[in-house]
Amino acid sequence: MKFYLVKWALAVLFAATAALSNAQSTVYTSATELTLVGKIMPTPQVYHRVDTAAYPGMPKAVNRLLTNSAGLAIAFKTNSTSISAKWCTGPRTALSNMTAIAYEGLDLYIKKDGRWQFAGVGRPDGDCTEYTLVRNMAEGEKECLLYLPLYDEATNLEIGVAEGASIQPLPDPFEKRILMYGSSILQGASASRPGMAYPARLSRDTGLNFLNLGLSGSAKMEKAVADMITTVEADAFVLDCVPNSSPEEIRERTAYLVNTIRQHHPKAPILVIPSTVRENGAFDQVIGNRVKAQNKQIEEEVNKLLRSGVKDLYLLSYKKQLGDDHEGTVDGSHPNDLGFDRMLLQLKPQIVSILKKYKIKAD
Amino acid sequence: MKFYLVKWALAVLFAATAALSNAQSTVYTSATELTLVGKIMPTPQVYHRVDTAAYPGMPKAVNRLLTNSAGLAIAFKTNSTSISAKWCTGPRTALSNMTAIAYEGLDLYIKKDGRWQFAGVGRPDGDCTEYTLVRNMAEGEKECLLYLPLYDEATNLEIGVAEGASIQPLPDPFEKRILMYGSSILQGASASRPGMAYPARLSRDTGLNFLNLGLSGSAKMEKAVADMITTVEADAFVLDCVPNSSPEEIRERTAYLVNTIRQHHPKAPILVIPSTVRENGAFDQVIGNRVKAQNKQIEEEVNKLLRSGVKDLYLLSYKKQLGDDHEGTVDGSHPNDLGFDRMLLQLKPQIVSILKKYKIKAD
Repeated sequence: MKFYLVKWALAVLFAATAALSNAQSTVYTSATELTLVGKIMPTPQVYHRVDTAAYPGMPKAVNRLLTNSAGLAIAFKTNSTSISAKWCTGPRTALSNMTAIAYEGLDLYIKKDGRWQFAGVGRPDGDCTEYTLVRNMAEGEKECLLYLPLYDEATNLEIGVAEGASIQPLPDPFEKRILMYGSSILQGASASRPGMAYPARLSRDTGLNFLNLGLSGSAKMEKAVADMITTVEADAFVLDCVPNSSPEEIRERTAYLVNTIRQHHPKAPILVIPSTVRENGAFDQVIGNRVKAQNKQIEEEVNKLLRSGVKDLYLLSYKKQLGDDHEGTVDGSHPNDLGFDRMLLQLKPQIVSILKKYKIKAD
Repeated sequence: MKFYLVKWALAVLFAATAALSNAQSTVYTSATELTLVGKIMPTPQVYHRVDTAAYPGMPKAVNRLLTNSAGLAIAFKTNSTSISAKWCTGPRTALSNMTAIAYEGLDLYIKKDGRWQFAGVGRPDGDCTEYTLVRNMAEGEKECLLYLPLYDEATNLEIGVAEGASIQPLPDPFEKRILMYGSSILQGASASRPGMAYPARLSRDTGLNFLNLGLSGSAKMEKAVADMITTVEADAFVLDCVPNSSPEEIRERTAYLVNTIRQHHPKAPILVIPSTVRENGAFDQVIGNRVKAQNKQIEEEVNKLLRSGVKDLYLLSYKKQLGDDHEGTVDGSHPNDLGFDRMLLQLKPQIVSILKKYKIKAD
């Protein structure tokens, strides 16, 4: 009889503990109470990249893309052993060349041995999702960095920790400000998750704040966009807009963009990235020839500007493009994570070395 | 007056040429008239992997997954300057950790300088799609390899070439038969496109025919599945089923699977791959400990079998797993293309070297 009583008591205790652990599970904090990393400028809707109402005349597609939360992240610290999120995005769903995690999901990194290390993702499920990104962690305080969706508008984000656990803003882990203006490749297509977009990888690797102004299909150096770009407070500017601009557009628009930046930022280095290879251009001769023409044109324009006396302007170079095996893209145009890795192996040393000359480096 | 007549005649000519070029554009051939590569066994529905009706007793999930066209490809040659496809798949849509191109799209390779080189993808748009994978190619005959969807059922596939162009079956470009049985990672999650699944990469790299029996989430070595596997005609067997099997399942089921294969294939080498790292296991201690327990258990089982006298059985090893930067997965579990690349750098030399001992190599 005693034995049964003990067994029964244990069962009740077990059920109660389980219920309690469920009940007390998660307490949410609005991400707006934490540290927003990667902001290009203040905006009325915090997860937009640019306050487009303040910049009339930009193309509609650009205005829409500036609502995407590409490059934004939340920095916080917590002693919770699990981290959850509730978030909502716009009604669009992932393009066929992206994962939904990259397009409208979340990506969590935690500091480990002094480095940012991948910890878990938020898998989107419809327009609003609640998801536990990581659980069963060791006790102790963690520094966290949560990347927002690359290609969708984030309309709400709350971060959940275990009841009783602390959650507080973490100072922005990145220093200085380097504005990167470019195409879908810069915005993050086709990284497998938000933290794998190449500006995000550059930031984690260097400790510098690379700001994502990637505008999928729409980085065409229009005058109104150039005028907006010059208003951004930045220590350096990286232009990766060749892939979206026709050779004619490159000829007609590069000088205005560079000169306008130079005028408003007399000392900021301007780094220009040629178009990455289009692997489908190996067989499609029209695409292959277009990329060659784009890269020839940007080289001419940069050289013309240098000859005209523009200082602190650099054209970066690719030696091996996305690798010898031609496997570095998802669709011929957009690097997969393998292609991005090979791209950074070539670009990162050039970027870091130029920025160092201007004392733009992490302490 | 004459000028207007000429202008009008030119306009008519231009319109007629455009109409003609549209009208004559694409002629479709059923893929069933070409060479089907990567078949594990004949099946009533040609793009299924196994005739599940002939193997009663397998789990429902396994039966469903065997309708997925993972690992299948169409080999053909054509002198067309463009290649299109019409294809239909089941009603499911991509998981959040995969691109739709990988899940239910197509992936085209063309032989160039003796190597298979990526040429273009088929972007799915709903359940039935018509899409031009590559256009504007140079004249001349091309050898082509078109990979089918990794995670969906392909219910129909037609390949389109320019009117007047030839299209013919190409002899299977791969030799011998190596059956690979494994988890979602083997099936192709989360390669960015079908041709980036790791058995497909192994085939292109080695010239050997690696057959994809990846069963997402369901590679658990059940007796009925083991019995089906032993009926497959193969020169070698690679088992990558540790990620889906609990330590208990590994203890209880490995011996039956290996012994049954050995009984029916006395001379075929059997290669066992330990579970790849779970990057989310770096923080989630339950996941981290589970992978350690799985890999400890499979090592024990293989050693037990070797001690019991089983010959030609090998346990492969990972030294660096998916890399030091922990960036090799899309979600902590499934390698991205970067992770797969690092995985193959370690596994491929081991696989190739063992197979060579058994004269399993491409001529």
